[in-house]
Amino acid sequence: MAEQIRAAYQGERGAFSETAARRLLGASMTGVPYNSFESIFAAVRNGEADCCVAPIENSLAGSIHRNYDLVLESDLTIIGETNLRIVHHLIAPPLTSSSVEIAGLRRVYSHPVALAQCTRFFAANPALEPVAVHDTAGAARLVVERGRGDEAAIASSDAASIYGGRVLASGIEDHPQNFTRFLLLASPHSGITNQEEPRRWKMSLMFRVPNKPGSLFRALGAFAVFDIDLSKIESRPVEGRPWEYAFYLDIIGRENDPKVEQALNSLRAMAEMVKVLGCYPTRW
Amino acid sequence: MAEQIRAAYQGERGAFSETAARRLLGASMTGVPYNSFESIFAAVRNGEADCCVAPIENSLAGSIHRNYDLVLESDLTIIGETNLRIVHHLIAPPLTSSSVEIAGLRRVYSHPVALAQCTRFFAANPALEPVAVHDTAGAARLVVERGRGDEAAIASSDAASIYGGRVLASGIEDHPQNFTRFLLLASPHSGITNQEEPRRWKMSLMFRVPNKPGSLFRALGAFAVFDIDLSKIESRPVEGRPWEYAFYLDIIGRENDPKVEQALNSLRAMAEMVKVLGCYPTRW
Repeated sequence: MAEQIRAAYQGERGAFSETAARRLLGASMTGVPYNSFESIFAAVRNGEADCCVAPIENSLAGSIHRNYDLVLESDLTIIGETNLRIVHHLIAPPLTSSSVEIAGLRRVYSHPVALAQCTRFFAANPALEPVAVHDTAGAARLVVERGRGDEAAIASSDAASIYGGRVLASGIEDHPQNFTRFLLLASPHSGITNQEEPRRWKMSLMFRVPNKPGSLFRALGAFAVFDIDLSKIESRPVEGRPWEYAFYLDIIGRENDPKVEQALNSLRAMAEMVKVLGCYPTRW
Repeated sequence: MAEQIRAAYQGERGAFSETAARRLLGASMTGVPYNSFESIFAAVRNGEADCCVAPIENSLAGSIHRNYDLVLESDLTIIGETNLRIVHHLIAPPLTSSSVEIAGLRRVYSHPVALAQCTRFFAANPALEPVAVHDTAGAARLVVERGRGDEAAIASSDAASIYGGRVLASGIEDHPQNFTRFLLLASPHSGITNQEEPRRWKMSLMFRVPNKPGSLFRALGAFAVFDIDLSKIESRPVEGRPWEYAFYLDIIGRENDPKVEQALNSLRAMAEMVKVLGCYPTRW
Protein backbone atom coordinates (compact mmCIF):
# COMPACT_ATOMS: atom_id res chain seq x y z
CA MET A 1 0.00 0.00 0.00
CA ALA A 2 1.34 3.44 -0.92
CA GLU A 3 1.89 5.88 1.95
CA GLN A 4 -0.65 8.32 0.62
CA ILE A 5 -4.03 6.64 0.67
CA ARG A 6 -6.49 8.53 -1.54
CA ALA A 7 -9.96 8.65 0.06
CA ALA A 8 -12.94 9.85 -1.98
CA TYR A 9 -15.64 11.77 -0.08
CA GLN A 10 -18.71 13.84 -0.91
CA GLY A 11 -18.56 17.59 -0.25
CA GLU A 12 -15.99 20.37 -0.36
CA ARG A 13 -12.70 20.42 1.57
CA GLY A 14 -13.52 20.67 5.28
CA ALA A 15 -16.70 18.60 4.95
CA PHE A 16 -17.57 16.35 7.90
CA SER A 17 -16.84 13.37 5.60
CA GLU A 18 -13.25 14.54 5.22
CA THR A 19 -12.86 14.76 9.00
CA ALA A 20 -14.22 11.20 9.24
CA ALA A 21 -11.77 10.03 6.55
CA ARG A 22 -8.84 11.55 8.48
CA ARG A 23 -9.94 9.79 11.67
CA LEU A 24 -10.23 6.48 9.87
CA LEU A 25 -7.03 6.71 7.84
CA GLY A 26 -4.74 9.05 9.78
CA ALA A 27 -3.48 12.54 9.00
CA SER A 28 -1.35 11.45 6.05
CA MET A 29 -4.29 10.40 3.87
CA THR A 30 -5.21 12.44 0.79
CA GLY A 31 -8.87 13.43 0.60
CA VAL A 32 -10.42 13.59 -2.86
CA PRO A 33 -13.66 15.64 -2.91
CA TYR A 34 -16.61 14.76 -5.17
CA ASN A 35 -20.05 16.24 -5.75
CA SER A 36 -22.16 13.14 -5.20
CA PHE A 37 -22.24 9.82 -3.36
CA GLU A 38 -22.42 7.99 -6.71
CA SER A 39 -19.14 9.64 -7.72
CA ILE A 40 -17.19 8.47 -4.66
CA PHE A 41 -18.06 4.82 -5.37
CA ALA A 42 -17.22 5.34 -9.06
CA ALA A 43 -13.89 6.94 -8.08
CA VAL A 44 -12.79 3.74 -6.29
CA ARG A 45 -14.04 1.58 -9.16
CA ASN A 46 -12.08 3.50 -11.79
CA GLY A 47 -8.92 3.88 -9.72
CA GLU A 48 -9.11 7.62 -8.98
CA ALA A 49 -9.21 6.77 -5.26
CA ASP A 50 -8.13 3.81 -3.11
CA CYS A 51 -11.18 3.90 -0.85
CA CYS A 52 -14.20 6.03 -0.06
CA VAL A 53 -15.90 7.32 3.09
CA ALA A 54 -19.71 7.53 3.12
CA PRO A 55 -22.14 8.67 5.84
CA ILE A 56 -24.59 5.83 6.53
CA GLU A 57 -26.75 7.06 9.41
CA ASN A 58 -27.32 10.07 11.64
CA SER A 59 -28.59 9.93 15.21
CA LEU A 60 -31.31 12.49 14.46
CA ALA A 61 -31.99 11.98 10.76
CA GLY A 62 -31.78 8.17 10.39
CA SER A 63 -30.21 5.71 7.94
CA ILE A 64 -29.14 6.99 4.55
CA HIS A 65 -30.80 4.25 2.46
CA ARG A 66 -29.34 5.65 -0.75
CA ASN A 67 -25.83 4.89 0.52
CA TYR A 68 -26.87 1.40 1.64
CA ASP A 69 -28.01 0.86 -1.96
CA LEU A 70 -24.69 2.08 -3.31
CA VAL A 71 -22.81 -0.27 -0.95
CA LEU A 72 -25.06 -3.15 -2.02
CA GLU A 73 -24.63 -2.44 -5.75
CA SER A 74 -20.87 -1.98 -5.50
CA ASP A 75 -18.08 -4.54 -5.30
CA LEU A 76 -16.60 -2.68 -2.34
CA THR A 77 -16.53 -4.07 1.16
CA ILE A 78 -16.82 -2.20 4.47
CA ILE A 79 -13.38 -2.14 6.12
CA GLY A 80 -14.07 0.30 8.95
CA GLU A 81 -16.46 2.75 10.53
CA THR A 82 -16.38 5.79 12.76
CA ASN A 83 -18.87 7.97 14.60
CA LEU A 84 -18.40 11.70 14.37
CA ARG A 85 -20.10 14.12 16.68
CA ILE A 86 -21.53 16.88 14.50
CA VAL A 87 -20.53 20.15 16.20
CA HIS A 88 -21.59 23.33 14.43
CA HIS A 89 -19.43 26.46 14.55
CA LEU A 90 -20.30 30.03 13.63
CA ILE A 91 -17.48 31.07 11.32
CA ALA A 92 -16.69 34.65 10.21
CA PRO A 93 -13.98 36.05 7.92
CA PRO A 94 -10.66 36.84 9.66
CA LEU A 95 -11.19 40.61 9.84
CA THR A 96 -8.58 42.75 11.55
CA SER A 97 -11.25 44.92 13.15
CA SER A 98 -12.16 43.42 16.49
CA SER A 99 -15.58 45.06 16.40
CA VAL A 100 -17.08 42.39 14.16
CA GLU A 101 -18.89 40.03 16.47
CA ILE A 102 -22.26 38.27 16.39
CA ALA A 103 -24.04 41.60 16.96
CA GLY A 104 -22.72 42.91 13.63
CA LEU A 105 -23.90 39.92 11.57
CA ARG A 106 -26.93 39.90 9.31
CA ARG A 107 -26.67 36.74 7.17
CA VAL A 108 -25.56 33.22 8.13
CA TYR A 109 -24.93 30.69 5.34
CA SER A 110 -25.03 26.92 5.66
CA HIS A 111 -26.62 23.70 4.41
CA PRO A 112 -30.33 23.75 5.34
CA VAL A 113 -29.93 20.63 7.48
CA ALA A 114 -27.26 22.44 9.53
CA LEU A 115 -29.42 25.60 9.71
CA ALA A 116 -32.34 23.47 10.90
CA GLN A 117 -30.11 21.94 13.61
CA CYS A 118 -29.37 25.41 15.04
CA THR A 119 -32.91 26.75 15.60
CA ARG A 120 -32.21 27.81 19.20
CA PHE A 121 -29.23 29.88 18.08
CA PHE A 122 -31.38 31.69 15.50
CA ALA A 123 -34.20 32.17 18.03
CA ALA A 124 -31.68 33.79 20.40
CA ASN A 125 -30.32 35.99 17.59
CA PRO A 126 -33.40 37.13 15.69
CA ALA A 127 -31.50 39.72 13.60
CA LEU A 128 -29.68 36.90 11.76
CA GLU A 129 -31.08 35.67 8.47
CA PRO A 130 -30.30 31.99 7.75
CA VAL A 131 -29.37 31.53 4.08
CA ALA A 132 -29.30 28.04 2.56
CA VAL A 133 -26.40 26.90 0.39
CA HIS A 134 -25.27 23.45 -0.81
CA ASP A 135 -22.59 22.55 1.65
CA THR A 136 -21.44 23.55 5.16
CA ALA A 137 -17.76 23.67 4.16
CA GLY A 138 -18.67 25.57 0.97
CA ALA A 139 -20.47 28.15 3.14
CA ALA A 140 -17.30 28.69 5.21
CA ARG A 141 -15.25 29.10 2.00
CA LEU A 142 -17.80 31.58 0.65
CA VAL A 143 -17.87 33.93 3.66
CA VAL A 144 -14.07 33.92 3.99
CA GLU A 145 -13.68 34.70 0.25
CA ARG A 146 -16.21 37.54 0.44
CA GLY A 147 -14.72 38.92 3.67
CA ARG A 148 -17.79 40.94 4.69
CA GLY A 149 -18.33 42.02 8.28
CA ASP A 150 -22.02 41.09 8.29
CA GLU A 151 -21.80 37.51 7.00
CA ALA A 152 -20.92 34.22 8.69
CA ALA A 153 -21.25 30.49 8.00
CA ILE A 154 -22.19 27.43 10.05
CA ALA A 155 -19.69 24.61 9.46
CA SER A 156 -17.14 22.33 11.13
CA SER A 157 -14.02 23.54 12.95
CA ASP A 158 -12.01 21.82 10.20
CA ALA A 159 -13.71 24.03 7.61
CA ALA A 160 -12.78 27.11 9.72
CA SER A 161 -9.11 26.03 9.78
CA ILE A 162 -8.92 25.11 6.10
CA TYR A 163 -10.41 28.37 4.83
CA GLY A 164 -8.87 30.58 7.53
CA GLY A 165 -12.18 31.57 9.12
CA ARG A 166 -12.56 32.89 12.65
CA VAL A 167 -14.78 30.90 15.02
CA LEU A 168 -17.24 33.25 16.78
CA ALA A 169 -19.20 30.50 18.58
CA SER A 170 -18.92 26.72 18.97
CA GLY A 171 -21.47 24.00 19.66
CA ILE A 172 -24.44 26.06 18.45
CA GLU A 173 -26.43 22.95 17.44
CA ASP A 174 -29.72 22.32 19.32
CA HIS A 175 -28.98 18.68 20.17
CA PRO A 176 -25.54 17.70 21.41
CA GLN A 177 -26.41 14.04 20.72
CA ASN A 178 -25.95 14.63 16.98
CA PHE A 179 -23.69 11.89 15.62
CA THR A 180 -23.10 10.66 12.09
CA ARG A 181 -21.77 7.17 11.42
CA PHE A 182 -19.42 6.90 8.43
CA LEU A 183 -18.30 3.73 6.64
CA LEU A 184 -14.87 3.22 5.11
CA LEU A 185 -15.15 1.16 1.92
CA ALA A 186 -12.55 -0.38 -0.37
CA SER A 187 -12.06 -3.32 -2.70
CA PRO A 188 -11.53 -6.62 -0.89
CA HIS A 189 -7.80 -7.20 -0.27
CA SER A 190 -6.96 -3.49 -0.60
CA GLY A 191 -4.75 -3.80 2.47
CA ILE A 192 -6.10 -0.50 3.85
CA THR A 193 -6.75 -0.55 7.60
CA ASN A 194 -8.75 1.58 10.00
CA GLN A 195 -6.37 3.70 12.11
CA GLU A 196 -8.70 3.95 15.11
CA GLU A 197 -7.94 1.62 18.03
CA PRO A 198 -10.41 -1.26 17.54
CA ARG A 199 -12.23 -2.84 20.50
CA ARG A 200 -14.24 -5.50 18.67
CA TRP A 201 -15.21 -6.88 15.25
CA LYS A 202 -18.45 -6.12 13.54
CA MET A 203 -20.13 -7.68 10.50
CA SER A 204 -22.72 -5.81 8.44
CA LEU A 205 -25.19 -7.73 6.32
CA MET A 206 -28.40 -7.36 4.42
CA PHE A 207 -30.97 -10.12 4.05
CA ARG A 208 -34.50 -10.74 2.84
CA VAL A 209 -36.81 -13.38 4.35
CA PRO A 210 -40.20 -14.64 3.09
CA ASN A 211 -43.04 -12.30 3.96
CA LYS A 212 -44.82 -14.28 6.68
CA PRO A 213 -45.37 -13.78 10.39
CA GLY A 214 -42.42 -14.99 12.47
CA SER A 215 -39.88 -15.10 9.62
CA LEU A 216 -37.76 -12.31 11.11
CA PHE A 217 -38.03 -13.95 14.53
CA ARG A 218 -36.68 -17.22 13.10
CA ALA A 219 -33.92 -15.39 11.19
CA LEU A 220 -32.75 -13.69 14.40
CA GLY A 221 -32.91 -17.07 16.12
CA ALA A 222 -29.97 -18.13 13.93
CA PHE A 223 -27.86 -15.60 15.88
CA ALA A 224 -29.61 -15.88 19.26
CA VAL A 225 -28.84 -19.60 19.66
CA PHE A 226 -25.11 -18.75 19.49
CA ASP A 227 -25.43 -15.72 21.81
CA ILE A 228 -24.28 -13.44 19.00
CA ASP A 229 -25.05 -9.82 19.85
CA LEU A 230 -26.71 -7.44 17.40
CA SER A 231 -25.77 -3.78 17.19
CA LYS A 232 -28.27 -2.68 14.53
CA ILE A 233 -31.39 -3.95 12.85
CA GLU A 234 -33.60 -2.09 10.45
CA SER A 235 -36.33 -3.16 8.05
CA ARG A 236 -36.71 -1.54 4.69
CA PRO A 237 -39.50 -2.03 2.16
CA VAL A 238 -38.34 -3.87 -0.97
CA GLU A 239 -38.71 -1.75 -4.13
CA GLY A 240 -41.50 -3.01 -6.37
CA ARG A 241 -42.65 -5.68 -3.87
CA PRO A 242 -45.25 -4.11 -1.58
CA TRP A 243 -45.36 -5.55 1.98
CA GLU A 244 -41.96 -7.23 1.57
CA TYR A 245 -38.98 -6.15 3.60
CA ALA A 246 -35.22 -6.38 3.50
CA PHE A 247 -33.22 -6.08 6.71
CA TYR A 248 -29.96 -4.39 7.58
CA LEU A 249 -28.24 -6.25 10.40
CA ASP A 250 -24.96 -5.50 12.19
CA ILE A 251 -23.68 -8.28 14.43
CA ILE A 252 -20.76 -8.35 16.85
CA GLY A 253 -18.44 -11.03 15.55
CA ARG A 254 -15.84 -12.12 13.06
CA GLU A 255 -15.99 -13.98 9.77
CA ASN A 256 -13.80 -16.89 10.80
CA ASP A 257 -15.54 -17.56 14.10
CA PRO A 258 -17.27 -20.98 13.70
CA LYS A 259 -20.37 -19.70 15.55
CA VAL A 260 -20.73 -16.77 13.15
CA GLU A 261 -20.19 -19.10 10.18
CA GLN A 262 -22.85 -21.47 11.45
CA ALA A 263 -25.32 -18.64 12.15
CA LEU A 264 -24.80 -17.32 8.61
CA ASN A 265 -25.34 -20.81 7.18
CA SER A 266 -28.64 -21.07 9.09
CA LEU A 267 -29.69 -17.63 7.89
CA ARG A 268 -28.83 -18.52 4.28
CA ALA A 269 -30.98 -21.68 4.59
CA MET A 270 -34.09 -19.65 5.45
CA ALA A 271 -33.50 -16.34 3.66
CA GLU A 272 -34.23 -15.43 0.05
CA MET A 273 -31.10 -13.29 -0.06
CA VAL A 274 -28.11 -12.72 2.23
CA LYS A 275 -25.22 -10.38 1.41
CA VAL A 276 -22.31 -9.70 3.74
CA LEU A 277 -21.39 -6.03 3.27
CA GLY A 278 -18.17 -6.30 5.26
CA CYS A 279 -16.46 -7.51 8.43
CA TYR A 280 -14.25 -4.96 10.17
CA PRO A 281 -12.50 -4.06 13.42
CA THR A 282 -14.13 -1.10 15.15
CA ARG A 283 -14.03 1.05 18.26
CA TRP A 284 -17.83 1.42 18.05
CA MET B 1 -65.90 17.33 15.20
CA ALA B 2 -66.20 20.63 13.29
CA GLU B 3 -66.35 20.39 9.50
CA GLN B 4 -63.09 22.28 9.06
CA ILE B 5 -60.34 20.23 10.65
CA ARG B 6 -57.22 22.36 11.14
CA ALA B 7 -54.06 20.35 10.36
CA ALA B 8 -50.64 21.78 11.28
CA TYR B 9 -47.77 20.95 8.92
CA GLN B 10 -44.18 22.05 8.39
CA GLY B 11 -43.38 24.06 5.25
CA GLU B 12 -45.06 26.67 3.07
CA ARG B 13 -48.40 26.21 1.32
CA GLY B 14 -48.01 23.53 -1.36
CA ALA B 15 -45.48 21.54 0.71
CA PHE B 16 -45.60 17.75 0.35
CA SER B 17 -46.84 17.63 3.97
CA GLU B 18 -49.91 19.64 2.98
CA THR B 19 -50.66 17.20 0.16
CA ALA B 20 -50.35 14.35 2.66
CA ALA B 21 -52.71 16.15 5.07
CA ARG B 22 -55.32 16.57 2.32
CA ARG B 23 -55.09 12.86 1.47
CA LEU B 24 -55.52 11.90 5.10
CA LEU B 25 -58.29 14.36 5.97
CA GLY B 26 -60.06 15.11 2.70
CA ALA B 27 -60.20 18.29 0.60
CA SER B 28 -62.20 20.26 3.17
CA MET B 29 -59.43 20.34 5.79
CA THR B 30 -57.63 23.60 6.59
CA GLY B 31 -53.85 23.37 6.46
CA VAL B 32 -51.93 25.53 8.94
CA PRO B 33 -48.29 26.02 7.91
CA TYR B 34 -45.44 26.25 10.47
CA ASN B 35 -41.67 26.69 10.22
CA SER B 36 -40.58 23.71 12.29
CA PHE B 37 -41.62 20.22 13.37
CA GLU B 38 -41.55 21.36 17.02
CA SER B 39 -44.13 24.03 16.16
CA ILE B 40 -46.66 21.63 14.62
CA PHE B 41 -46.74 19.52 17.82
CA ALA B 42 -46.98 22.71 19.91
CA ALA B 43 -49.84 23.96 17.71
CA VAL B 44 -51.97 20.91 18.59
CA ARG B 45 -51.03 21.20 22.26
CA ASN B 46 -52.07 24.85 22.50
CA GLY B 47 -55.23 24.49 20.41
CA GLU B 48 -54.09 26.35 17.27
CA ALA B 49 -54.67 23.12 15.29
CA ASP B 50 -56.77 19.96 15.76
CA CYS B 51 -54.08 17.59 14.50
CA CYS B 52 -50.70 17.59 12.79
CA VAL B 53 -49.11 15.74 9.90
CA ALA B 54 -45.42 14.82 10.17
CA PRO B 55 -43.09 12.97 7.77
CA ILE B 56 -41.62 9.97 9.60
CA GLU B 57 -39.54 8.15 6.98
CA ASN B 58 -38.43 8.38 3.36
CA SER B 59 -37.66 5.42 1.13
CA LEU B 60 -34.26 6.88 0.17
CA ALA B 61 -33.32 8.98 3.20
CA GLY B 62 -34.55 6.81 6.11
CA SER B 63 -36.44 7.36 9.37
CA ILE B 64 -36.71 10.89 10.70
CA HIS B 65 -35.63 10.14 14.29
CA ARG B 66 -36.28 13.73 15.35
CA ASN B 67 -39.97 13.28 14.59
CA TYR B 68 -40.07 9.93 16.42
CA ASP B 69 -38.71 11.83 19.43
CA LEU B 70 -41.40 14.49 19.10
CA VAL B 71 -44.12 11.78 18.90
CA LEU B 72 -42.63 10.06 21.96
CA GLU B 73 -42.41 13.30 23.99
CA SER B 74 -45.90 14.43 23.03
CA ASP B 75 -49.29 13.41 24.39
CA LEU B 76 -50.54 12.92 20.83
CA THR B 77 -51.38 9.54 19.38
CA ILE B 78 -50.98 8.32 15.79
CA ILE B 79 -54.44 8.13 14.19
CA GLY B 80 -53.45 7.51 10.58
CA GLU B 81 -50.66 7.33 8.02
CA THR B 82 -50.16 7.75 4.30
CA ASN B 83 -47.40 7.20 1.78
CA LEU B 84 -46.80 9.93 -0.76
CA ARG B 85 -44.78 9.41 -3.89
CA ILE B 86 -42.42 12.38 -4.15
CA VAL B 87 -42.68 13.59 -7.76
CA HIS B 88 -40.62 16.63 -8.65
CA HIS B 89 -41.84 19.17 -11.22
CA LEU B 90 -39.95 21.92 -13.01
CA ILE B 91 -42.10 25.01 -12.46
CA ALA B 92 -41.76 28.33 -14.31
CA PRO B 93 -43.70 31.60 -14.02
CA PRO B 94 -46.87 31.79 -16.19
CA LEU B 95 -45.37 33.96 -18.94
CA THR B 96 -47.49 34.82 -21.96
CA SER B 97 -44.51 34.40 -24.30
CA SER B 98 -44.39 30.81 -25.44
CA SER B 99 -40.66 31.05 -26.11
CA VAL B 100 -39.72 30.50 -22.48
CA GLU B 101 -38.89 26.85 -22.19
CA ILE B 102 -36.16 24.84 -20.53
CA ALA B 103 -33.63 26.13 -23.06
CA GLY B 104 -34.15 29.68 -21.80
CA LEU B 105 -33.61 28.87 -18.14
CA ARG B 106 -30.44 29.64 -16.19
CA ARG B 107 -31.30 29.17 -12.49
CA VAL B 108 -33.43 26.48 -10.81
CA TYR B 109 -34.42 26.98 -7.15
CA SER B 110 -35.39 24.25 -4.68
CA HIS B 111 -34.59 22.62 -1.36
CA PRO B 112 -31.13 21.00 -1.61
CA VAL B 113 -32.61 17.55 -0.93
CA ALA B 114 -34.89 18.01 -3.96
CA LEU B 115 -31.99 19.36 -6.08
CA ALA B 116 -29.92 16.34 -5.04
CA GLN B 117 -32.76 14.02 -6.11
CA CYS B 118 -32.69 15.48 -9.65
CA THR B 119 -29.01 15.02 -10.56
CA ARG B 120 -29.80 13.33 -13.88
CA PHE B 121 -31.96 16.28 -14.93
CA PHE B 122 -29.12 18.71 -14.16
CA ALA B 123 -26.58 16.48 -15.93
CA ALA B 124 -28.81 16.52 -19.04
CA ASN B 125 -29.21 20.33 -18.80
CA PRO B 126 -25.72 21.58 -17.91
CA ALA B 127 -26.61 25.26 -18.51
CA LEU B 128 -28.91 25.22 -15.46
CA GLU B 129 -27.52 26.35 -12.13
CA PRO B 130 -29.20 24.67 -9.12
CA VAL B 131 -29.81 27.24 -6.35
CA ALA B 132 -30.65 26.05 -2.83
CA VAL B 133 -33.49 27.60 -0.84
CA HIS B 134 -35.35 26.48 2.30
CA ASP B 135 -38.45 24.89 0.92
CA THR B 136 -39.66 23.36 -2.37
CA ALA B 137 -43.03 25.15 -2.20
CA GLY B 138 -41.28 28.40 -1.22
CA ALA B 139 -39.11 28.07 -4.35
CA ALA B 140 -42.23 27.82 -6.54
CA ARG B 141 -43.72 30.91 -4.84
CA LEU B 142 -40.44 32.80 -5.35
CA VAL B 143 -40.09 32.17 -9.10
CA VAL B 144 -43.76 32.96 -9.77
CA GLU B 145 -43.50 36.21 -7.76
CA ARG B 146 -40.33 37.27 -9.61
CA GLY B 147 -41.76 36.27 -13.00
CA ARG B 148 -38.39 36.06 -14.78
CA GLY B 149 -37.98 34.08 -17.98
CA ASP B 150 -34.71 32.47 -16.89
CA GLU B 151 -35.74 31.09 -13.49
CA ALA B 152 -37.67 27.99 -12.45
CA ALA B 153 -38.28 25.95 -9.30
CA ILE B 154 -38.45 22.25 -8.46
CA ALA B 155 -41.52 21.50 -6.34
CA SER B 156 -44.76 19.51 -6.18
CA SER B 157 -47.62 19.85 -8.67
CA ASP B 158 -49.70 21.20 -5.76
CA ALA B 159 -47.19 24.03 -5.33
CA ALA B 160 -47.47 24.79 -9.08
CA SER B 161 -51.29 25.04 -8.80
CA ILE B 162 -51.30 27.10 -5.61
CA TYR B 163 -48.85 29.72 -6.85
CA GLY B 164 -50.03 29.67 -10.47
CA GLY B 165 -46.79 28.30 -11.88
CA ARG B 166 -46.46 26.57 -15.23
CA VAL B 167 -45.15 22.98 -15.23
CA LEU B 168 -42.36 22.61 -17.83
CA ALA B 169 -41.43 19.02 -16.91
CA SER B 170 -42.76 16.35 -14.54
CA GLY B 171 -41.14 13.40 -12.78
CA ILE B 172 -37.61 14.80 -13.05
CA GLU B 173 -36.41 12.94 -9.92
CA ASP B 174 -33.67 10.32 -10.38
CA HIS B 175 -35.44 7.54 -8.48
CA PRO B 176 -39.14 6.94 -9.05
CA GLN B 177 -39.23 4.80 -5.87
CA ASN B 178 -39.09 7.95 -3.75
CA PHE B 179 -41.84 7.73 -1.13
CA THR B 180 -42.35 9.58 2.12
CA ARG B 181 -44.50 8.14 4.90
CA PHE B 182 -46.47 10.72 6.88
CA LEU B 183 -48.20 10.24 10.26
CA LEU B 184 -51.44 11.91 11.28
CA LEU B 185 -51.37 12.76 14.99
CA ALA B 186 -54.01 14.10 17.34
CA SER B 187 -55.00 13.99 20.99
CA PRO B 188 -56.62 10.70 22.00
CA HIS B 189 -60.43 10.89 21.55
CA SER B 190 -60.16 13.76 19.04
CA GLY B 191 -62.71 11.97 16.85
CA ILE B 192 -60.67 12.78 13.73
CA THR B 193 -60.49 9.90 11.24
CA ASN B 194 -58.27 9.02 8.29
CA GLN B 195 -60.20 9.56 5.03
CA GLU B 196 -58.24 6.97 3.04
CA GLU B 197 -59.92 3.58 2.56
CA PRO B 198 -58.32 1.38 5.23
CA ARG B 199 -57.35 -2.23 4.55
CA ARG B 200 -55.96 -3.20 7.96
CA TRP B 201 -55.04 -1.93 11.42
CA LYS B 202 -51.54 -1.09 12.48
CA MET B 203 -50.01 -0.41 15.88
CA SER B 204 -46.79 1.57 16.29
CA LEU B 205 -44.73 1.15 19.42
CA MET B 206 -41.34 1.87 20.87
CA PHE B 207 -39.58 -0.35 23.38
CA ARG B 208 -36.24 -0.87 25.07
CA VAL B 209 -34.93 -4.26 26.17
CA PRO B 210 -31.90 -5.12 28.34
CA ASN B 211 -28.63 -5.00 26.42
CA LYS B 212 -27.81 -8.70 26.14
CA PRO B 213 -27.59 -11.17 23.26
CA GLY B 214 -30.97 -12.61 22.37
CA SER B 215 -33.10 -9.97 24.11
CA LEU B 216 -34.53 -8.63 20.84
CA PHE B 217 -35.13 -12.21 19.66
CA ARG B 218 -37.14 -12.95 22.82
CA ALA B 219 -39.04 -9.65 22.52
CA LEU B 220 -40.08 -10.51 18.95
CA GLY B 221 -41.05 -13.96 20.19
CA ALA B 222 -43.89 -12.29 22.09
CA PHE B 223 -45.43 -11.48 18.69
CA ALA B 224 -44.24 -14.54 16.75
CA VAL B 225 -46.04 -17.03 19.03
CA PHE B 226 -49.35 -15.34 18.11
CA ASP B 227 -48.49 -15.10 14.38
CA ILE B 228 -48.64 -11.31 14.57
CA ASP B 229 -46.99 -9.78 11.50
CA LEU B 230 -44.47 -6.94 11.71
CA SER B 231 -44.34 -4.16 9.15
CA LYS B 232 -41.36 -2.24 10.51
CA ILE B 233 -38.52 -2.73 12.95
CA GLU B 234 -35.62 -0.42 13.56
CA SER B 235 -33.04 -0.15 16.30
CA ARG B 236 -31.82 3.18 17.53
CA PRO B 237 -28.99 3.89 19.96
CA VAL B 238 -30.23 5.23 23.31
CA GLU B 239 -28.89 8.73 24.05
CA GLY B 240 -26.30 8.75 26.80
CA ARG B 241 -26.23 4.93 27.10
CA PRO B 242 -23.60 3.62 24.70
CA TRP B 243 -24.33 0.13 23.25
CA GLU B 244 -27.99 0.27 24.35
CA TYR B 245 -30.78 0.35 21.82
CA ALA B 246 -34.42 1.31 21.62
CA PHE B 247 -36.63 -0.24 18.94
CA TYR B 248 -39.39 1.12 16.75
CA LEU B 249 -41.88 -1.61 15.92
CA ASP B 250 -45.00 -1.52 13.74
CA ILE B 251 -47.26 -4.56 14.00
CA ILE B 252 -50.33 -5.53 12.02
CA GLY B 253 -53.15 -5.71 14.56
CA ARG B 254 -55.64 -3.93 16.75
CA GLU B 255 -55.58 -2.83 20.37
CA ASN B 256 -58.60 -4.84 21.45
CA ASP B 257 -57.51 -8.10 19.85
CA PRO B 258 -56.77 -10.51 22.76
CA LYS B 259 -53.67 -11.86 20.95
CA VAL B 260 -52.25 -8.34 20.56
CA GLU B 261 -53.04 -7.59 24.21
CA GLN B 262 -51.30 -10.77 25.34
CA ALA B 263 -48.25 -10.09 23.14
CA LEU B 264 -47.97 -6.58 24.59
CA ASN B 265 -48.24 -7.97 28.12
CA SER B 266 -45.41 -10.40 27.39
CA LEU B 267 -43.31 -7.61 25.89
CA ARG B 268 -43.93 -5.39 28.93
CA ALA B 269 -42.81 -8.23 31.21
CA MET B 270 -39.38 -8.39 29.54
CA ALA B 271 -38.83 -4.79 28.37
CA GLU B 272 -37.46 -1.84 30.31
CA MET B 273 -39.84 0.48 28.49
CA VAL B 274 -42.81 0.03 26.14
CA LYS B 275 -44.83 2.92 24.72
CA VAL B 276 -47.71 2.48 22.27
CA LEU B 277 -47.52 5.46 19.87
CA GLY B 278 -50.90 4.74 18.31
CA CYS B 279 -53.23 2.17 16.76
CA TYR B 280 -54.84 3.19 13.47
CA PRO B 281 -56.65 1.95 10.36
CA THR B 282 -54.46 2.19 7.27
CA ARG B 283 -54.32 1.41 3.57
CA TRP B 284 -50.58 0.74 3.91
